[in-house]
Amino acid sequence: MSKTTTYTKPMVYVLNPSCQIEDLEIGSDYEGVITRVEKYGFFVSLSKSVYGLLRTRNPKEKVGDKIVVKISEIKPHKGKMDVDLSYSKTRYGNDYEKVPVKRSVKKTKVKDLTEDLIGRNVAVQGEIIQIQQTSGPTIFTLRDETDITWAAAFNEPGVRMYPELEVEDVVEILGEVSLHSGKIQIESESIEKLPEDEEEAVRRAIDMAVDKKAESPDTSVMIESEVLDKLRPKLAAAAKAIRRAILDGRSILVRHHADADGICSGIAVEQAVLPLLREESNDADAEWHFFKRSPSKAPFYELEDVVKDLSFALEDQERHGQKLPLLVLLDNGSTEEDVAALRHSKVFGVESVVVDHHYPGEVEDGRSLIDDYVDIHVNPYLVGGDSQLTAGALAVELAGMINPDVRDKIRHFPAIAAVGDHAECDEVDQYLEIAEELGYSREDLDRVSTCVDFEAYFLRFNNGRGIMNTLLGLEDRERQEELLDVLMSESDKRVDTQLKAALPNVETVYFDNGIQLNRLDVEKYAHKFTYPAPGKTTGYVHDKLVQEKGEDKPIMTLANGPDFAVLRATETIKNDFDFNLNNVITKIQEELPQAGVDGGGHEVAGSLKFVEGLRDEVLDLFIEDVKDLKRD
Amino acid sequence: MSKTTTYTKPMVYVLNPSCQIEDLEIGSDYEGVITRVEKYGFFVSLSKSVYGLLRTRNPKEKVGDKIVVKISEIKPHKGKMDVDLSYSKTRYGNDYEKVPVKRSVKKTKVKDLTEDLIGRNVAVQGEIIQIQQTSGPTIFTLRDETDITWAAAFNEPGVRMYPELEVEDVVEILGEVSLHSGKIQIESESIEKLPEDEEEAVRRAIDMAVDKKAESPDTSVMIESEVLDKLRPKLAAAAKAIRRAILDGRSILVRHHADADGICSGIAVEQAVLPLLREESNDADAEWHFFKRSPSKAPFYELEDVVKDLSFALEDQERHGQKLPLLVLLDNGSTEEDVAALRHSKVFGVESVVVDHHYPGEVEDGRSLIDDYVDIHVNPYLVGGDSQLTAGALAVELAGMINPDVRDKIRHFPAIAAVGDHAECDEVDQYLEIAEELGYSREDLDRVSTCVDFEAYFLRFNNGRGIMNTLLGLEDRERQEELLDVLMSESDKRVDTQLKAALPNVETVYFDNGIQLNRLDVEKYAHKFTYPAPGKTTGYVHDKLVQEKGEDKPIMTLANGPDFAVLRATETIKNDFDFNLNNVITKIQEELPQAGVDGGGHEVAGSLKFVEGLRDEVLDLFIEDVKDLKRD
Amino acid sequence: MSKTTTYTKPMVYVLNPSCQIEDLEIGSDYEGVITRVEKYGFFVSLSKSVYGLLRTRNPKEKVGDKIVVKISEIKPHKGKMDVDLSYSKTRYGNDYEKVPVKRSVKKTKVKDLTEDLIGRNVAVQGEIIQIQQTSGPTIFTLRDETDITWAAAFNEPGVRMYPELEVEDVVEILGEVSLHSGKIQIESESIEKLPEDEEEAVRRAIDMAVDKKAESPDTSVMIESEVLDKLRPKLAAAAKAIRRAILDGRSILVRHHADADGICSGIAVEQAVLPLLREESNDADAEWHFFKRSPSKAPFYELEDVVKDLSFALEDQERHGQKLPLLVLLDNGSTEEDVAALRHSKVFGVESVVVDHHYPGEVEDGRSLIDDYVDIHVNPYLVGGDSQLTAGALAVELAGMINPDVRDKIRHFPAIAAVGDHAECDEVDQYLEIAEELGYSREDLDRVSTCVDFEAYFLRFNNGRGIMNTLLGLEDRERQEELLDVLMSESDKRVDTQLKAALPNVETVYFDNGIQLNRLDVEKYAHKFTYPAPGKTTGYVHDKLVQEKGEDKPIMTLANGPDFAVLRATETIKNDFDFNLNNVITKIQEELPQAGVDGGGHEVAGSLKFVEGLRDEVLDLFIEDVKDLKRD
Repeated sequence: MSKTTTYTKPMVYVLNPSCQIEDLEIGSDYEGVITRVEKYGFFVSLSKSVYGLLRTRNPKEKVGDKIVVKISEIKPHKGKMDVDLSYSKTRYGNDYEKVPVKRSVKKTKVKDLTEDLIGRNVAVQGEIIQIQQTSGPTIFTLRDETDITWAAAFNEPGVRMYPELEVEDVVEILGEVSLHSGKIQIESESIEKLPEDEEEAVRRAIDMAVDKKAESPDTSVMIESEVLDKLRPKLAAAAKAIRRAILDGRSILVRHHADADGICSGIAVEQAVLPLLREESNDADAEWHFFKRSPSKAPFYELEDVVKDLSFALEDQERHGQKLPLLVLLDNGSTEEDVAALRHSKVFGVESVVVDHHYPGEVEDGRSLIDDYVDIHVNPYLVGGDSQLTAGALAVELAGMINPDVRDKIRHFPAIAAVGDHAECDEVDQYLEIAEELGYSREDLDRVSTCVDFEAYFLRFNNGRGIMNTLLGLEDRERQEELLDVLMSESDKRVDTQLKAALPNVETVYFDNGIQLNRLDVEKYAHKFTYPAPGKTTGYVHDKLVQEKGEDKPIMTLANGPDFAVLRATETIKNDFDFNLNNVITKIQEELPQAGVDGGGHEVAGSLKFVEGLRDEVLDLFIEDVKDLKRD
Repeated sequence: MSKTTTYTKPMVYVLNPSCQIEDLEIGSDYEGVITRVEKYGFFVSLSKSVYGLLRTRNPKEKVGDKIVVKISEIKPHKGKMDVDLSYSKTRYGNDYEKVPVKRSVKKTKVKDLTEDLIGRNVAVQGEIIQIQQTSGPTIFTLRDETDITWAAAFNEPGVRMYPELEVEDVVEILGEVSLHSGKIQIESESIEKLPEDEEEAVRRAIDMAVDKKAESPDTSVMIESEVLDKLRPKLAAAAKAIRRAILDGRSILVRHHADADGICSGIAVEQAVLPLLREESNDADAEWHFFKRSPSKAPFYELEDVVKDLSFALEDQERHGQKLPLLVLLDNGSTEEDVAALRHSKVFGVESVVVDHHYPGEVEDGRSLIDDYVDIHVNPYLVGGDSQLTAGALAVELAGMINPDVRDKIRHFPAIAAVGDHAECDEVDQYLEIAEELGYSREDLDRVSTCVDFEAYFLRFNNGRGIMNTLLGLEDRERQEELLDVLMSESDKRVDTQLKAALPNVETVYFDNGIQLNRLDVEKYAHKFTYPAPGKTTGYVHDKLVQEKGEDKPIMTLANGPDFAVLRATETIKNDFDFNLNNVITKIQEELPQAGVDGGGHEVAGSLKFVEGLRDEVLDLFIEDVKDLKRD
Repeated sequence: MSKTTTYTKPMVYVLNPSCQIEDLEIGSDYEGVITRVEKYGFFVSLSKSVYGLLRTRNPKEKVGDKIVVKISEIKPHKGKMDVDLSYSKTRYGNDYEKVPVKRSVKKTKVKDLTEDLIGRNVAVQGEIIQIQQTSGPTIFTLRDETDITWAAAFNEPGVRMYPELEVEDVVEILGEVSLHSGKIQIESESIEKLPEDEEEAVRRAIDMAVDKKAESPDTSVMIESEVLDKLRPKLAAAAKAIRRAILDGRSILVRHHADADGICSGIAVEQAVLPLLREESNDADAEWHFFKRSPSKAPFYELEDVVKDLSFALEDQERHGQKLPLLVLLDNGSTEEDVAALRHSKVFGVESVVVDHHYPGEVEDGRSLIDDYVDIHVNPYLVGGDSQLTAGALAVELAGMINPDVRDKIRHFPAIAAVGDHAECDEVDQYLEIAEELGYSREDLDRVSTCVDFEAYFLRFNNGRGIMNTLLGLEDRERQEELLDVLMSESDKRVDTQLKAALPNVETVYFDNGIQLNRLDVEKYAHKFTYPAPGKTTGYVHDKLVQEKGEDKPIMTLANGPDFAVLRATETIKNDFDFNLNNVITKIQEELPQAGVDGGGHEVAGSLKFVEGLRDEVLDLFIEDVKDLKRD
């Protein structure tokens, strides 16, 4: 009871309907309403359950009259308490200070709301992190610094209670502790915003506690790796950001590249997050409402993607009162091409985490260009590593930090990602070994990654969760095997068709420097708009031609369409001839600025775009460059 | 109580379960059921709450027996009324006329349902305009000629009550006035369709009242303009049609062109309609259920669009009992190309409003071709104006008539639309001045319209409400500025890329008549499937080339792809050479019918389509025509 | 009460809370809890409503103590039964065998749950086939071998009761028979899984009964046809599979070719299934939740389609507990090209029915290739028929077997399908006659099928149910006529435009063998990405040219784009020159393996795909082949 303020006018207390006898103060004045009149006096109701008797002979007062009375005595009588009233000096309606009296209940921390308290009245302070309108009561999810609980507010079924309250408000809930489908819940009697000073203190306490809870419980990694060790703090920060978003009731929006590496990344994080969501929310559909995973067609976060994501997020915010999501980009997000979309989302205050292994451009002080636009950036290049440490591996380690329980299910993912990305390094070897222990031979991994790519081609914008989970061995292993059989045979058939058309139309020249250059018009000599697409088709053609001569030979395959070209070359070309596709592109951009050349990738695998009208000039320049290469 | 009809058989009244003692008539016969038998007589229930005592010694009747009794007396007893019964001459089950008795309650107009009536029983007649099944009761939205109210019908939670009732039925609702989340609501006891004659009268009264309420409260416009003055009656009619749809519980489907002009149009109407929807409906999601806004890729209402719109509307009708929507086309809808889609929607009885400024073809008696297929058509050409008065300006004036409160928020929209559409006229100058007062310089407007176009390109079929509202300055102005910065720099970068490829490949010829013709293969010398698209790219190229020589020179830019061409020319070409793209197209259609030439636009800005195989013939004819132009 | 098992330890019964006095056995021991203590003894509660008095002077027992008591007597007292208890030899908590006692209620078959039983307690055993969480109770749909019923389980509004129970569990429901919106429903008191042996018996009984109920009530067909007679058993099996899916609460997913034949097929089955769904389910939205119909762009079930279908089905399974759907492919599904998708769906255990008339490849023992991957395959070729018996006809006959009531509505569909597919045979004549009787002349049918195709082009992936129903005459016939007018005039206009461009560019050569070959570059000399598309355009061109010379002349039209060609030829070419497109394709595949030729169709109508770079070689080979044809 906050009766500390002093008034110059007389004070008259007005009980909240929920007040009990123990909220009364003897000698003080209270407003009430007359509910019964007898010869010996009349009864005055002061709250829903508190009333007193003002004894007076043949009173003239009438039922329904309002009155100010003084509490003269509270005494036990037949096992309960009787309240005796007397007339106050202050008359009802006169100029006095009305002092609201809230029911005096014990302030309780959420963690102390145990079954022992069922049936008791409590006051809980905290922040609203979710408001759900059920068909029955309105459910407010409240957290304080100790835990999360739920308060039901009920008036009429389906009616939103306290429409003035919003997510993030700091409130005090009075109510009775009850059990609702096995969970502690407060049947709220009143929910009120706290005054500013109390609000601040509650917020601070919560923030500290949530921040602590958001820390990953275990930031170890699966393998020994210097690069990974250096990245651990960044991965831990990413894990914390994701855990924090879950605790804050923010949704998580995962975008990933639509290939085996990207899909392994996305599903690893998905597998880590979903159980936490189910645990932290009492919304049965939480895993659908608070987690979205979408493949991105392009190998970067496009403007097409960001405007769609923002549109949905802003609608969810306006329509359902949801907070803006945490954006998590996997196997995407590090490059210059991601800048536009990430700047765009930043304008709307979207927090973002990037876990990628694509070349992020020049690194200075452990930061690259994109660091200006994202909140957490994990990329091996930032610590001296390179793209051989796949996004899939990083995301699996991240998933383990988010939710250590998930580790056993996804230990073979990094090996799938590595094989899918043709990655080779010491880390990859360790991951392959782990997969081997789990029964995945290198050929198995190749089949899985091929089938994931194959399926992703047909799924387009759909994440295909159910199918992908089966393909990656998260469900029935027997069904996985059957599915691999079906998809591999179909993939092989389609690759054969493309090769049958393409191989006879490859033109091969041998340069004086020893380089064998294979050229192909991949739009004319392969089926369009089908699997495998030009990039993959070029890869298959190149692999076939290299097989004939040997991996150690300097062989390059350049396939083009009207306004693009795809390059694949053996490692020798990079190592012995010091070739780097990205440098060649820079050179052409300078020499032929009007060709609008763009693109890049790894040193010996990537693509170029150019305007159709200057195709021949661009390709000629490129070939000239290759011709002039000199063996070290 | 309708006891006026006369019968030859004896009449026996049967009380409706809700009847009260005041519904009884002394001396008349009633059916009842025996509910208690005592030595001194038995009690007969006549309705849920009405019963009487038939005094007789040691009665032989049994509980549960049905019986016909006469009301002999109704007298006060201990603060309530006692009903005394006697045996009737008519025996239960004999051949008599059963006369149902409804509870006699005061017929009340909806506007008179005030808080004073809470707890009272009323009868309200009106038309059902919406039926919602909540998790609790079924809610019927009812309107009479005075206002709208809601009646809750409750049996078991989630069960649809009165499944025989449908939207548009005219009914009488009996029930108690109550308060539901602060709104007056009727707790219905019974809802029954009115007989045909009463129905007719109610419908007429409602129709007149709603029609009156649908009138715009203020049809003034923002600027002085003869054309606008002439269009005011049409705009007022459009505003009324939209207001009427809201009052009728019909949804509103806005389709608009996906450029700055069209988007300003769409959002202006959206801003006007949403507050009215929130006000008129008790459905918290009304603004999502009853309003849809979609950009149309093409500059007309396509068959692709109409079949999608109709499919959804017909499904909503069948599945959710919704009425067909009012179709509102903005910056679209006036031309011959819109005929097919609008005829299509007309077959299904869809009402439509078109507000457009594209050339509608020949105007006769203030009507053009499309007037045969739409209900209200607003277009400056119909009253002697032209396309310089943008759809954005018209739609903003319309929005102000729909909901005058919205005017202050969208006063700068016409200026954005004008700059986006390169419109110039006296009206535009006034709108620019208004924008200037609101802090939007011409450069600001240009940035906004460019960014709206840029964003629309990536949003595709999504209306991007949240993003667009920010871009147009309806939300946080600071965030608007940040977003403009991000998008402008990105737009500039992409325009530069296109120009760098295109400009060196422009071929310029100078004809004897002084015209400079710039030609460009925009598919070969610009990136495809990216922003800016060919039309915009051509515009940027043209502007660049005109800048070099001066706006007053006769300069024309003709860019083509394999089966299309885009034209931009300086005003001089139109004014001094009397050039009109639409006429040239007609001429080519005649001379080369097999080329399938189509297209058009403004006099000196537009596009052509043709079959690929006759590209050279078409372009040659075109150029020949330009060559032969003579300066006036 | 199952007290048959013998124990060596003492047995103490524990009543289920719902037990009644009649569940007690005199002389046996029961666990209870002391609820009142008086001087003359204490009361022991044995279940929610059963208690007894153990008389003893000044007992020392306390309220709340648990105790084992013996039932010594049950005797009537003041209109109810009194239970007298005595101390048991077994003390509470000692080592005894607890024997749970369920309330003894009459086991009742679902079909016997009539209104006579309202208010009575029953026990019903059966399989859960659906679980719905309403805003109020959880509703379990239960079936036994006699019928389907619903049980409501209620605790708090919106809370899922018995979360451990899943669809397909076999349970016993105890509860009171009640009426809920006119339907019998059980207000459940308890729902428990049956032990394994009882479960087995219930399952068997249900399976037999449902299987019987799934049989089509009438497998007659509309016309006389040997082929149809041979297919009747297969059609009946398909009808049964679909009826069984409805009875099993599985959804039905119809995929059909997006032309008039396929759409007639799909809508015929839709019209048959929807009324059954409404009847069998108490979910008002059943027809939307349990039935989906989608057109497939390609003339086969594509991988794009199957991955989308599977993704949604697996999500529905995980998220909403739905069973996997029954897949029904209509006018699609029989060919080699369907194998990949059908194998894919098979891996996930999806049951499938194919009703198609496309050539299924070699037939052996009444089976073709696809029979290995589908559960039921209906195709005229399997019984010696051919594609002249359309899928539309087969699907209409199937629809009649699924639901005989639908026959009268769709009797004209086979004629529409036949005209749309240019089918001609004795069966078609009979169907045309039936349509004639219903007022559809051949010209009417042609208009309908043309408009269905036209509309399907614009609807793309949307099934356009409302529009198509109108077009096919299932709704307002007057509106059908109006719609046909609008669409025909629009279709004619667009065909004219294509013909105007194409016809002057057709090159005709006359070979020595008398064949007239018309060639057209349909990408260069017709508008792209518009209606009619290349295949249809070629058809219109061919028809036009044949009209000039006569149907009996050997005329062939070969239209090509960069990587495809379309063929149309007169029947004479097939009959007199023994030409078969499929054979020519096989030949080219052998001679030009690198061209990646694929395709096929009917003997004189179909298409080829090839890689762009070998177009001339492919077409030359083709023409060479035509040139060398010899008249028989």
